[in-house]
Amino acid sequence: MFSISPFDSALFRELLSNPDAARWLGDEAQITAMLKVEGELALAQADCGLIPAEAADAIARAAAILELPAIKLASGTAAAGVPVPALVKALKQALPAEQARWVHFGATSQDIVDTALVLNCRELLGLYEARLTMIIDLLARLARAHRHTLTAGRTRTQQAVPMSFGFKVANWLAPLLRQQERLQQLKPRLLKVQLAGAVGTLAAMGEQAPAIAIRLAERLNLAAGRNWHTQRDSLVELANWLALTTGLLGKTGQDWLWLSQTEVGEITFTNGGGSSTMPQKCNPVNAEILVAMARHNAGQIGQMHQAMLQEHERSGSAWTQEWLVLPTMLMCTAVALHHAEDALNHLVINTDRLQANLGLYNGVIFAEAATFALARQMPRDQAANLVKAACKQAIGGDRHLFTLIKEQCGIELDLARLQQHLLEGGATSAWFEEILAATDH
Amino acid sequence: MFSISPFDSALFRELLSNPDAARWLGDEAQITAMLKVEGELALAQADCGLIPAEAADAIARAAAILELPAIKLASGTAAAGVPVPALVKALKQALPAEQARWVHFGATSQDIVDTALVLNCRELLGLYEARLTMIIDLLARLARAHRHTLTAGRTRTQQAVPMSFGFKVANWLAPLLRQQERLQQLKPRLLKVQLAGAVGTLAAMGEQAPAIAIRLAERLNLAAGRNWHTQRDSLVELANWLALTTGLLGKTGQDWLWLSQTEVGEITFTNGGGSSTMPQKCNPVNAEILVAMARHNAGQIGQMHQAMLQEHERSGSAWTQEWLVLPTMLMCTAVALHHAEDALNHLVINTDRLQANLGLYNGVIFAEAATFALARQMPRDQAANLVKAACKQAIGGDRHLFTLIKEQCGIELDLARLQQHLLEGGATSAWFEEILAATDH
Amino acid sequence: MFSISPFDSALFRELLSNPDAARWLGDEAQITAMLKVEGELALAQADCGLIPAEAADAIARAAAILELPAIKLASGTAAAGVPVPALVKALKQALPAEQARWVHFGATSQDIVDTALVLNCRELLGLYEARLTMIIDLLARLARAHRHTLTAGRTRTQQAVPMSFGFKVANWLAPLLRQQERLQQLKPRLLKVQLAGAVGTLAAMGEQAPAIAIRLAERLNLAAGRNWHTQRDSLVELANWLALTTGLLGKTGQDWLWLSQTEVGEITFTNGGGSSTMPQKCNPVNAEILVAMARHNAGQIGQMHQAMLQEHERSGSAWTQEWLVLPTMLMCTAVALHHAEDALNHLVINTDRLQANLGLYNGVIFAEAATFALARQMPRDQAANLVKAACKQAIGGDRHLFTLIKEQCGIELDLARLQQHLLEGGATSAWFEEILAATDH
Amino acid sequence: MFSISPFDSALFRELLSNPDAARWLGDEAQITAMLKVEGELALAQADCGLIPAEAADAIARAAAILELPAIKLASGTAAAGVPVPALVKALKQALPAEQARWVHFGATSQDIVDTALVLNCRELLGLYEARLTMIIDLLARLARAHRHTLTAGRTRTQQAVPMSFGFKVANWLAPLLRQQERLQQLKPRLLKVQLAGAVGTLAAMGEQAPAIAIRLAERLNLAAGRNWHTQRDSLVELANWLALTTGLLGKTGQDWLWLSQTEVGEITFTNGGGSSTMPQKCNPVNAEILVAMARHNAGQIGQMHQAMLQEHERSGSAWTQEWLVLPTMLMCTAVALHHAEDALNHLVINTDRLQANLGLYNGVIFAEAATFALARQMPRDQAANLVKAACKQAIGGDRHLFTLIKEQCGIELDLARLQQHLLEGGATSAWFEEILAATDH
Repeated sequence: MFSISPFDSALFRELLSNPDAARWLGDEAQITAMLKVEGELALAQADCGLIPAEAADAIARAAAILELPAIKLASGTAAAGVPVPALVKALKQALPAEQARWVHFGATSQDIVDTALVLNCRELLGLYEARLTMIIDLLARLARAHRHTLTAGRTRTQQAVPMSFGFKVANWLAPLLRQQERLQQLKPRLLKVQLAGAVGTLAAMGEQAPAIAIRLAERLNLAAGRNWHTQRDSLVELANWLALTTGLLGKTGQDWLWLSQTEVGEITFTNGGGSSTMPQKCNPVNAEILVAMARHNAGQIGQMHQAMLQEHERSGSAWTQEWLVLPTMLMCTAVALHHAEDALNHLVINTDRLQANLGLYNGVIFAEAATFALARQMPRDQAANLVKAACKQAIGGDRHLFTLIKEQCGIELDLARLQQHLLEGGATSAWFEEILAATDH
Repeated sequence: MFSISPFDSALFRELLSNPDAARWLGDEAQITAMLKVEGELALAQADCGLIPAEAADAIARAAAILELPAIKLASGTAAAGVPVPALVKALKQALPAEQARWVHFGATSQDIVDTALVLNCRELLGLYEARLTMIIDLLARLARAHRHTLTAGRTRTQQAVPMSFGFKVANWLAPLLRQQERLQQLKPRLLKVQLAGAVGTLAAMGEQAPAIAIRLAERLNLAAGRNWHTQRDSLVELANWLALTTGLLGKTGQDWLWLSQTEVGEITFTNGGGSSTMPQKCNPVNAEILVAMARHNAGQIGQMHQAMLQEHERSGSAWTQEWLVLPTMLMCTAVALHHAEDALNHLVINTDRLQANLGLYNGVIFAEAATFALARQMPRDQAANLVKAACKQAIGGDRHLFTLIKEQCGIELDLARLQQHLLEGGATSAWFEEILAATDH
Repeated sequence: MFSISPFDSALFRELLSNPDAARWLGDEAQITAMLKVEGELALAQADCGLIPAEAADAIARAAAILELPAIKLASGTAAAGVPVPALVKALKQALPAEQARWVHFGATSQDIVDTALVLNCRELLGLYEARLTMIIDLLARLARAHRHTLTAGRTRTQQAVPMSFGFKVANWLAPLLRQQERLQQLKPRLLKVQLAGAVGTLAAMGEQAPAIAIRLAERLNLAAGRNWHTQRDSLVELANWLALTTGLLGKTGQDWLWLSQTEVGEITFTNGGGSSTMPQKCNPVNAEILVAMARHNAGQIGQMHQAMLQEHERSGSAWTQEWLVLPTMLMCTAVALHHAEDALNHLVINTDRLQANLGLYNGVIFAEAATFALARQMPRDQAANLVKAACKQAIGGDRHLFTLIKEQCGIELDLARLQQHLLEGGATSAWFEEILAATDH
Repeated sequence: MFSISPFDSALFRELLSNPDAARWLGDEAQITAMLKVEGELALAQADCGLIPAEAADAIARAAAILELPAIKLASGTAAAGVPVPALVKALKQALPAEQARWVHFGATSQDIVDTALVLNCRELLGLYEARLTMIIDLLARLARAHRHTLTAGRTRTQQAVPMSFGFKVANWLAPLLRQQERLQQLKPRLLKVQLAGAVGTLAAMGEQAPAIAIRLAERLNLAAGRNWHTQRDSLVELANWLALTTGLLGKTGQDWLWLSQTEVGEITFTNGGGSSTMPQKCNPVNAEILVAMARHNAGQIGQMHQAMLQEHERSGSAWTQEWLVLPTMLMCTAVALHHAEDALNHLVINTDRLQANLGLYNGVIFAEAATFALARQMPRDQAANLVKAACKQAIGGDRHLFTLIKEQCGIELDLARLQQHLLEGGATSAWFEEILAATDH
């Protein structure tokens, strides 16, 4: 209809939205899932003897085939502040009175909305898992391909110590493995039915109430939950997982922005955006979006925490606040995963520039390594002072650090051997293998 | 298309969206405004002799009539990370080559997007102003109508001291007057053209550059600005104004939620939402939405500040983050203004409940007033101690505070006179009149 | 020194700070932990043969006894942007040159700061666990004590359906059990050593590097981690746990604020704050602080996510941002846990007010229960319409809902039996027992 | 006492705190200001005939000399949830009973806390203004010094079009001028007395109430306000100004981080932080802190908006939330202003690197300028295509863009003249002069 949010815009649909995720978000997905919950609820109630089986069957059938355009529920939603009363009314109208009376029997609006949300979240989690696995796989291949490429490790914007580019890639990958672990742990807490009635006691369903809640869970293949109308911790845990995911991809995206700067030039994206007036430009669109998505989810997550303060047995205001935040976080994450994958499929490593950047300032990036190498032949402090003095000269002049060191102490450092150590030694090999091993399954 | 955000949803369009504001947001409004900027830019450039007048006229005409569905720009937008290159291409295709070559001459994408945004913001500000004036008017009428209705002033959730309900209403109104003032002050900083070229120097427009920028501003009836590609302070100031507006309405909405609780019952909304299973319920939907909008804008505003950190002469990531936030804040504010007005049109004051609540706990809410009244006839500390003791008895027992006071010191307090003082005395009358006077214009 | 933050203020130290938590936060705790890490690092390096055992012993001893007032490190910290260089220098000065040279050998500042942080977090987690257990225990006792007290369930600020007050309490408790579970799951990801050297490769420690990292972990009783200098996911997961904890306590605190309002009056805190001029007041200070802490942590959490975008192998700016946020979140959580426990120790349930509030508006809160009871003897829609009409009359008049129902259909509803059902029936008993059973260990 | 917040830490006091600002923040400053308000309130009340002049004099004198260590008010503050009752009690104890009784007469705690806050804010605003002026002056000098230095304008991380480095500096400066303007506009709304009594009506001060409020304002040299206990818009406006200030400085700091990267190397800070193991490093500490402060204030501002939702006539929870946020925002801003000034005093422009970076990729950064220059001699599209093709060759090969252009069309572009145009032409000169002119006062 409108497109206030770029996530919904036709203009931005290939940049800031994702059709695979959109299937499980938005009006149609919500209505379909809510109808499914109403249908399965009736069947579960019939299974437990609360309502007649024929009524339940009729309700489930009607719910499955009812075509209910969102716009028809707009007025009712505005009046009630929640779409369920209008949806229930429409479902009842599709049935004979004798059966209609058993629709939504003893349930409350939030039971339907929340359970429908969980159903759609389950689909989205599946999508995230598949994408994460794909990205992990792409990163693993990239890490292996550049296991022996030396690059400048950089701290606080400055070149620090050379390291394996493949290991740098493995460090983008490693926390994604923890995200997979976290996802498995949160699923049993999240993928639960919400069926609790007006104030969370299911009083209107009588003695069969606990059994119905369990039966509905079985039917929907969800865990059986108790009431969580105003216990929003598991939804917030999901939101946190989403923001962690985009945060980790955003860190990688930010690295890509820094690496693809004109003056650094170590990576290029073959799908970079062009400029009409500056033909030389190649804008790293994917990487920009990764950073934007990370900062957006980071900016949204606090609202989910604010919305935990739901007074008594249901808060109209805090619950509404969730609706404004969680769907955009879910989409934001899908968008980020898409751009990460797309970027990895278009990423080129410019090994000549990696090499050239290591040579800036006459090799001073090898200062730490030189110090530790010299320290085998002289006291470490002496080595440190010697290298420090040589660095000053190297930065200001035009001779290589190792030439200057040799001039001062006669020791000729073996650059190739130092490079070999920086690629293989320390913890690099051990940790690289650990991370990569964890990607095999 | 989709409806990730409830602001865009058909389902929620009467609850969480606003058609008057939607006209100036979203794909169509953006495309129309961008085309208008391209057209006027060509005319301004012709006015200053940079491009041929016939070309400019043709461009302006084509821009005015071109039908450009958003979806046609989707791929180009995704490739460039910004919609302008695709839009320029489409506009050029609608013109003969001789004229097409002058389209978007020397401008940069951000010039078009930002100026179009400012044009739409101007329309929205007009809408906000009109609504604010309406709400101020409704509040002023309500304040006057209940100038002499006594209610319980409440602090930290507890009844504190009686006060005029009309003055309470005037306190909802007063900060809205400051919002009008702030809006007038920020307008000259915000309603500025953005025309600065690739890196903010307008180099490609040659010596006429400054004149063209001024001329375009005149044509669009905007202030002439210099480059503000990465100076986002005025946009953030707007966002702050939006969040202040929803925050103030949210405070009022929160008061309404507290006042309309079953146990307080001092106000009712005749348009309250019903419940299918609880026929006695009347949910204060408008007030809930006001709180939700306030907390949502409060949750969004920080992102606009985060997005100020735009590196160098343009940041793809931070600029994108703005797109995700500002439109929803603009809509959120329109939604809140709508619900505030709607609520005021359906608000009923239950004066009997106001009266009854003042009588809870045997009149202890008059404790402070009693103390100050007694202090005219005895030392204040003695009065305070006497009233404190009487309060304890009144709360625990069934006799009125004034009866207990009389019993202890023989002084009969005149309740009607005290009430009169609480309604008229102190600063109430003076401040009430000041506030109401400021609403007349 | 100063007290910019109320968490540090002498004025607010009993209101907004917590001495048990303060032991593990702040300058002294950080310096002590950092020295411990330096000492244990030396020992681990000696264990693995990298540095001489005597030097390691001397370093560990010096680190254990060195008195290092924070103020002495202030200038060095300002110069480097991180306290470690100054700390290392001070530690070296306490040792003979021959041993001093092995201090901090091959480590980077962040190794020391992060590992010290993890050590202090471990202590804080222990404190949180103990407090959570205590609060769960207090809630469990309260729940059992009021298992059979009927109260008004309330949704969207309105009385909805009666329920067991004990079950309401159990719903405050239930998510805290999930917090215990989450804590156990995040610990192995969080309580990890950080030892990775300048760019995360431990290159300067040579071939023993991986073994040293493992040995240091053993010595500190932490998990052996790889480098996580710019992989901040587990710290953010901790922050999320903190905000979840305060959010859940804040929801409870908010319920307490609503329940202790003058007009509701269902609970009172015997330690409520007084007012000098309003002797009748009893301000629910604990509950207010719970809400403030929840909203504060909710307001902070997003910054931890923003700070995940750490470029390359170390970000000076994002790392600094963490320092500004995480300690206050850690303290905020301790403060909330303290106030929750304190509140529970001073909470009084006013059962007469619970009862009185259920009787407001002539029993209309029993509308849903009445409908379902009548539905056993007539079609449900007919029952619903009958009750709805009776409700309208009851609200506007002075007769009880059940009297009006009887008048209209002749059926006499049994209030006591209905109340019994609302206390025991539906899912209340089953779910109450499930929750309480989970608290026994 | 403790130092939960780095703003309060001895360790970080030279990095993350600022002694000039600390004078007006924290326990001592708050207590002093609160005592001053109590003293002046008494005098104002005597001026208006409400209390005896001798009592007022005695109170004012006692308030001026009372030594009141914060720790003495800790218990009272914890009990009441606000420090004023304990402070009033201490002040009364310093006076004879006859005079003590007139202390805090008819005022409420929030009157004292808020007015004291405003007094301290006024001092801080003075400090900010002075620092801003200093920074503007330093930037103006830098801008003038490099008015004719050419640098690479960069958009979306890529070199775009050359521009004047002095103009780039002027763009850091320009929005600070708007901050000065905003500050003047917000002052009359912010620097107001808060004197309104228990529920904002000043009822306890009788008929003189409005006059007393005005008199107190005169005495404190503040504007006379009405009650704003739960109208927090002007405090939030201040918070927004603070975050805008740090946001603008943060943008500049971020530019500095990008410019000082090893591979860019266009600026250096002579006070950069060193590394013990990497002697070649020079960490841009000031710039890092600017970014951290900007992101921290951006992360805090939303809480001030959340805290606007103060129910009824005073909210204990939302008011407490303000205390946790506003002081840290005030300090954060002072810290950023300090680091900006410090950085500017240590900033070196490496003009040779500016020059070298312009030459990367064989002059393709001159592509846009070349296109527009050629367009004077051939159709623009033809020029664009020609340049585009030449760019491709230049990037991939080793010949200069202009050589390639000449080869293809025979036109020899005059690099010096183009550079001159890029420095002087377009809008650069006009806008540069406008900005700099606005700094002269």
